[in-house]
Formats: sequence, structure tokens, C-alpha cells
Amino acid sequence: MARDGYAFGIDVGGTSVKIGMFDQDGVLMVSWEIPTRKEARGSHILPDVAGEIASKMQEIGLTAWEVSGIGVGVPGPVLDRRIVNRCSNLGWGRFDVRKTLQELTGVTRIVVENDANVAALGEFWKGGGRTARNVAMITLGTGIGAGFIQDGRIVSGSFGAAGELGHLQINPWETVPCACGKCGHLQQYASASGMIRVMRERLQDPSCISSLRDVPLSAKEIIDAAKAGDAAALETVDTAAEMIGRTMSFISVTLDPELYLIGGGIAKAGDFLLDKIRHSFREAAFFASEGCEILPARLGNDAGVYGAVKMVLDVESDAGQ
Amino acid sequence: MARDGYAFGIDVGGTSVKIGMFDQDGVLMVSWEIPTRKEARGSHILPDVAGEIASKMQEIGLTAWEVSGIGVGVPGPVLDRRIVNRCSNLGWGRFDVRKTLQELTGVTRIVVENDANVAALGEFWKGGGRTARNVAMITLGTGIGAGFIQDGRIVSGSFGAAGELGHLQINPWETVPCACGKCGHLQQYASASGMIRVMRERLQDPSCISSLRDVPLSAKEIIDAAKAGDAAALETVDTAAEMIGRTMSFISVTLDPELYLIGGGIAKAGDFLLDKIRHSFREAAFFASEGCEILPARLGNDAGVYGAVKMVLDVESDAGQ
Repeated sequence: MARDGYAFGIDVGGTSVKIGMFDQDGVLMVSWEIPTRKEARGSHILPDVAGEIASKMQEIGLTAWEVSGIGVGVPGPVLDRRIVNRCSNLGWGRFDVRKTLQELTGVTRIVVENDANVAALGEFWKGGGRTARNVAMITLGTGIGAGFIQDGRIVSGSFGAAGELGHLQINPWETVPCACGKCGHLQQYASASGMIRVMRERLQDPSCISSLRDVPLSAKEIIDAAKAGDAAALETVDTAAEMIGRTMSFISVTLDPELYLIGGGIAKAGDFLLDKIRHSFREAAFFASEGCEILPARLGNDAGVYGAVKMVLDVESDAGQ
Repeated sequence: MARDGYAFGIDVGGTSVKIGMFDQDGVLMVSWEIPTRKEARGSHILPDVAGEIASKMQEIGLTAWEVSGIGVGVPGPVLDRRIVNRCSNLGWGRFDVRKTLQELTGVTRIVVENDANVAALGEFWKGGGRTARNVAMITLGTGIGAGFIQDGRIVSGSFGAAGELGHLQINPWETVPCACGKCGHLQQYASASGMIRVMRERLQDPSCISSLRDVPLSAKEIIDAAKAGDAAALETVDTAAEMIGRTMSFISVTLDPELYLIGGGIAKAGDFLLDKIRHSFREAAFFASEGCEILPARLGNDAGVYGAVKMVLDVESDAGQ
């Protein structure tokens, strides 16, 4: 067994892998990024990570004995804190990430979780959730993910579906399929790609007057146009915010968090979007939850490495070390 | 401090209060019911309970020293496992149930929770959830409540709203208000009173042919008529089941339970209703959750007293006694 020592937090994303090295007090000493090599069904990703860790250990003169563990966030469902069950945007099928990384690094204590859950834990620990016990963090990016902290621990669930809010069926009448194959999912309307899809649909109506006609669409362009008063863009943003707020009202009659943190690229729209989400949440929420706070996440892209290493520290403290 | 000993589980309902006395191993020794006296804003209820406990202790020859604690389930939101925040069908406002019962009984260890959460813990401990770690129990009665067990513990939430599924806004276009004042809540369609309301609406259409015209309506009558092929009754039951299944799909992308237990009076309809709920759930669920089991609850009205006393035993074991 390793004793308390340095720990690594890894956040595997579709474009890059972020790596953080922490001391025994959980202080981030250094962090860096490497590109995510998705070729060959993503089979280079974990060897690349192991190579980076080995180089860093050699550079500083660390032995495996001095590394207490590695925490890993991955963009897909994770079972039993080790097995990924299909990370389609990495090319991964189902396999044991813990075992693979143990073999590659020689480090025993490896904890794997869904990246949105890990980011929520990072925000809870070092970011916007530090004063709360029960936090829901929603990440609005290309897709939509969420992580829930209840009494200080990640809600991991049973089938790796906890926090897969992007696949909540917000519109049962939809006939256009989500990437997963089913229809009417939240991320078809309220993620970056969803907002682009909805906006494109609106622009197909020749009578729709919009400044976004014949320009390349992005979520940022749509939100900026909405801020500038473009009616079609505003409707697109309003639809997204209404659905996000309503989804949060569902979470409040389930997990009943005291605080929502909103992160991800779309959240950069700031209070323009957050105020719409707050309004929609309060309209739909059960009276007891109406006072729930809704704030921006604080750590940005660092939430993942913080949360990943916190999982290692929690396992340590559970083991009474 | 009391040492390990006998414990009482109390389930306060709108019609009757169920009381169970358990030995130190959690075996139910005796249980009985008293009517819930709702007059005078429900101020007799806790003194009545305390009187019953005192009588039973005297009968058996127990001192307060030999009672390790009292667990209580109440039909409303509970904060911090002691303060109720409005139990409208008991006439209660906001007050400290723990403190009141401590003063009335002399027993120190008192744990209070929402009744649906308590019933879920009872089913988890001694009923249909015994093989699972993560269980969602949904009670379909006059209203709709739910309780969630995650890693063996009740999900209590922050504002007493955890499990208040009856107030999930399943239909944002509804204009008829729920008892709480907001519109489109699940229990307006899928509880016993909701099914009666929907059926009445259908019968207002003079062209609606139904065996239920001009008879007193109950959920049981509606379900029996649906089973017998009454088209309007079948539509009412189908709407309820569709909404319940869709709501469960929301829970699965949030808490991701491995097992749903369905209890309450309406669940007596058996597989006729459960199969419809299972179908609707699988239609709406994220792929990873589709295999989730949906089973009837097993303990019936006893779930409450079992869950109530389990809370006391859990506090004991947390305290390392």
C-alpha cells in the first residue's frame, strides 16, 4: 500500500487531457494538458497519461511509494468507480480503467468517475460549493452533464446514469433523435449543439428575420444575438433556459440540493442566461425549494482535476489513514 | 444517554398514527394504531403518541433508560431530522417535533423524517429492497410521495423537498392548480385524487361513453373499469402510468437507483398498472437505466414503523454504541 503522499488528478476530455499534481494537503502543485489521441479507438489515451505521470515522477524524483493515488474523470458512465461503459467521444467501449491504469503506472489506488460528477466534487471542495453540503452542478457545454454531491459525497448511482441530465426526456413529443437514439432529450435544446440545432430549425422558416442568417452558428453567436435583441435567437435561448430551469425543479423534488452551480461554455453568457434559468426554476419549483441558490461555477476547467484528486483523498480518509 | 434497548417507530398519517415497539435487534414486538386527532391544529397528536408510549412502557415495566429512541415519520417536509415545515393535512405549521416529543416523553434520541422517506428506508431494510444499495420507493396514494435510499441512507435533501414527487411539474401547460397552488403537478393526474379529477373531466364531455357515469368515483373503480375495457377509464390510467414512468426516467438520470418499489393504495392494481409504468419508463429512460427493476413494495402500511425505528438504529450505529 502507498502511504499518504502526492496524488494525481486526471480529467480526460474529448479534446485534451488535463493532469494535476497535488501535495498531501490537496494543494495543486502543477497542472498541464496533453491532446486526447482518439485514433485506434482511443487506445493511446491511458498510455499517454501513464507516460506523463512517469515523466513527472522521474523529473521530481518520486517513487511509486510516494504517490498515494490517481483520480480520473472520464466523459461517460462509470460503474463501481472503475469500469467505463461506453465513452463514445473517446472511442472507448466497456473496460476496466482502474485495472488498465494500475498496470500502466504501478499505482494501486485509482478511483474513476464520470467527469461531470468529478467536476461537481471539485466545485464542492474548492469552488462555488464550499459552504454547502448538498450541491448540484450542471455543465452546459457541447452536451449537458451534471454531478450531484449529497452530504459531501458524489451520488454515483447504479448504472452509471447519475447526472446524465442531457438525456432527460424534457419533450416527449419530439421526433428528432438525440445522439443516443431516443428523442426529446434536454441536450437537443439546451446544450451548445442543441441551441445551434434549434436555431437552424428556426432559420429554415423563410419568414424568420434574424441577424444569424448565413453566418456560421455557435452557441456564443446565438447568445450574443439574443442579448442584442434578435427575436429568433432570444426564443432559442429562452427555450433552453426554460427547459434547464424546469429540469432543475425536477432535481429539487428528488435530491433537493441547497445550491445549483452552472458551469460549462454556455454558462459564460453570465446573468443574462442565469437570470432566465432562475426565473424558470422558480416558476416550476415546489414551494419549499424556491429559495434554492443558483450560481455560476467557479473553477472552470480546473474543477475536474480538483474533484479527481479529492476522490483519492476521500478514499484515504475512509480507510482511516 | 439511553443505552441500547427498546425503540419505538411512529408513522403519523392523516387518518391514524401507527406505533410499533421493537426490541434491540430490530424485531417488531407489537404494533397498534390510534386515530389522528386533527382538531385544534393537530395539537393533540404528539401528546396522544406520548401517552401511548408511556402506557406501553408502564405495561411492560420499562424505564426511559431502557428506551433507546423514537423514530417518527410525518406527512410533510422535515428539516434537519427534527423540524416540520407545514404538514397541511395534520393542521401543523412549522415547529420542532423532536423537542416537543423529548419534552413529552423524556426520551432524548428522537429522529424525525418525511413519511415517504421513512417508508423507503423500511422497505430497504425489511421489505422489497433488501438486496439493493440504491432504492427509490414511490407511494401512490391520495397524493404521491417518494423516498430515496442512496448507499443505504435516506436522501434527506436541504429544504425538506427530497421525494416530493407529487409536486413535480410534469405538465407545464396545465392551468388547473394543484393543492399547493402551482399547476401541472404529477399528483394532479397520477394520485388517487388526481385520477378521479381527470376521470371527472373526461365525463364532463357528454359524448364520453363510460360505465363510470353517475357512480361515485374512486381510484379503485377507475382501475377496475379500465381492466374491464372502459375506454375513458383506460385513458385515465394510461395517462397516469405514462406520467409516472416518465417521472421515474427523470429520477434515473439524477439518482440512478437500481430498483424502484411502487407502494400505496393505487399499487394494489398490481401488474395491470405496473406493466404500464414499466413500459412508459423504458420508453423514456436513458439507455443505461433501461434494465432497472420496477417491483411492488412489500411491507404495506408497516413500512413506516420499520423505517422509523431503523433511523434510530442507524443513529446508534453511527454513534458507535
